[in-house]
Amino acid sequence: MATAFLFGFGKVGRELVKLLLGTDQDIELVGVTSSRGTVLTEGPRDKAELLRLAREGRKLHEHPSFIPGLLAPDSAVAVKPDIVFIAIPPSYETGEPNRTIYKALVEEGINIVTADKTVLALHYNWIKGKAEENGALLGYRATVAAGTPAIDAARALRYRGVESLRAVLNATSNYVLGLVEQGLSLSEAIERSIKDGLAEPDPSIDLHGWDAAAKLTILANELGLEAALNDVDRVPLTEEAIGSLAGEKARVKQVASLRVEEGKAVLRVAPEAVLPGDPLYYAEGERNVILYYLEGDMIRLEGPAGPAWRTARVMLADALEILRAS
Amino acid sequence: MATAFLFGFGKVGRELVKLLLGTDQDIELVGVTSSRGTVLTEGPRDKAELLRLAREGRKLHEHPSFIPGLLAPDSAVAVKPDIVFIAIPPSYETGEPNRTIYKALVEEGINIVTADKTVLALHYNWIKGKAEENGALLGYRATVAAGTPAIDAARALRYRGVESLRAVLNATSNYVLGLVEQGLSLSEAIERSIKDGLAEPDPSIDLHGWDAAAKLTILANELGLEAALNDVDRVPLTEEAIGSLAGEKARVKQVASLRVEEGKAVLRVAPEAVLPGDPLYYAEGERNVILYYLEGDMIRLEGPAGPAWRTARVMLADALEILRAS
Repeated sequence: MATAFLFGFGKVGRELVKLLLGTDQDIELVGVTSSRGTVLTEGPRDKAELLRLAREGRKLHEHPSFIPGLLAPDSAVAVKPDIVFIAIPPSYETGEPNRTIYKALVEEGINIVTADKTVLALHYNWIKGKAEENGALLGYRATVAAGTPAIDAARALRYRGVESLRAVLNATSNYVLGLVEQGLSLSEAIERSIKDGLAEPDPSIDLHGWDAAAKLTILANELGLEAALNDVDRVPLTEEAIGSLAGEKARVKQVASLRVEEGKAVLRVAPEAVLPGDPLYYAEGERNVILYYLEGDMIRLEGPAGPAWRTARVMLADALEILRAS
Repeated sequence: MATAFLFGFGKVGRELVKLLLGTDQDIELVGVTSSRGTVLTEGPRDKAELLRLAREGRKLHEHPSFIPGLLAPDSAVAVKPDIVFIAIPPSYETGEPNRTIYKALVEEGINIVTADKTVLALHYNWIKGKAEENGALLGYRATVAAGTPAIDAARALRYRGVESLRAVLNATSNYVLGLVEQGLSLSEAIERSIKDGLAEPDPSIDLHGWDAAAKLTILANELGLEAALNDVDRVPLTEEAIGSLAGEKARVKQVASLRVEEGKAVLRVAPEAVLPGDPLYYAEGERNVILYYLEGDMIRLEGPAGPAWRTARVMLADALEILRAS
């Protein structure tokens, strides 16, 4: 049976544990590492206890077999699993420790399935090259519109001369904007989104466009356009921006857009006024919409982008595909 | 420079010639085979003459270097090109000569880029296995909703537990139904579609659901469900069917559907009454729409399905991807 290791015991990590240990899968989960330490799940008792912690939303260090200080990537590299699932928070400022973690894994030829956008958004060609060189496979469908095959669709359009794309990629800001439309102030809407389990305690990753910008960067690279996160022009979603854009007919959406100019991608994430008839207008709640413009026509892809349980299922699907291919 | 050979000099074949010889591409077209013979394009004069025939919509046998009786697959196998483009008519009755052509090519390890659905719809696992065994790559994005990344999206959903799909996959019948809505009888609409260059002289491949059924079969296989063309329940589009389904609010669409029952695909292509609010209702002209139902949610993919020049561009994109990978 194939073995898997998990980095991260937050919402997505716990859902993965529930899938791997709570349902019938041909993958054995051999360990989990959080930011503080590791649990190696060596016997059925360890596994049962881990599943209980995941189901109850508890912390990894409450596990009786918790080894404090045994951190990623060392914990997994020692075990050499067939797959490492990465469900740790992104780190867009320095790219670390995420970059070091990915590097150590692929240099050991360990396959990665990730929901973390850090390394792809900052160093797309570097990590792809490293992986290929070392025969490691990367699954990252969960990084963009998890639930909706956005990565695959972008890759299919690589040689088609896409001229531009427009998209709603960040579920949290879309949810927040929906609440604002219902009459809440932006800060009330953020507070409610945190309570509803959608927004992170620090909502700037979503509202300042970091998350959408990272996704947009990955899509650009799939299209064959070189781009990195810092190339994206980001305009934060503020009370003022919403007020100035909202009109009688228009809805305000956080729009991620890409335009190809002289073979180069021009990338932007900004609040925009969107009118009825535009497919972005109908992006509700956690649904993502991606529109590609090419050859005088438009391709529309639309689907769910979360929540954590769906992201976990997408990661499992990536893992099954990798195990079948390797 | 990579070399390519082309089977078929109909609408799509001519568009491919225009792309390969009339625009700047890193692929050299070394020969074309029609149902009657072959032209080997050895020098610039042969190429210029072939491009002229393609642009003027003429027959291959008008070429001064035409070799009558040199047929597929022998013509290409002798030349051993890097890619063979297949743009010959489908052959759903016996599967021949298409099956023999594909077999001969993959056994020589020759990569195939095809717009013909025959072999994938009839013998999906056989041809995929043969290709893998012989190290040949298959590009077939042009077989389903060419222009829209339907194959890639389906493959991405393989391990996601899709419960059903509903789609408008046949551009011709959709175009015909649009004309019927404008007041034409079915036979008038068919006649007009033939004149507009959309319908084939024998429209039964489209109106009796063969084309949509073949596409549906390929999507089912991409989803990991075993299926062959003859498993599809096909209900022809007739004047009576349209009359009985059309209502004040409903539009009649040729709907291709798949339902998973006990792990098996139940496949059907039939005229259906579709109501406003249903994304299939808004499928206009040559646009295809594919809806996936899974995990309590829906994924929507929508885009252009033709015409021939677009199909040719999709085939070129497949070829460029294959050349990069091989």
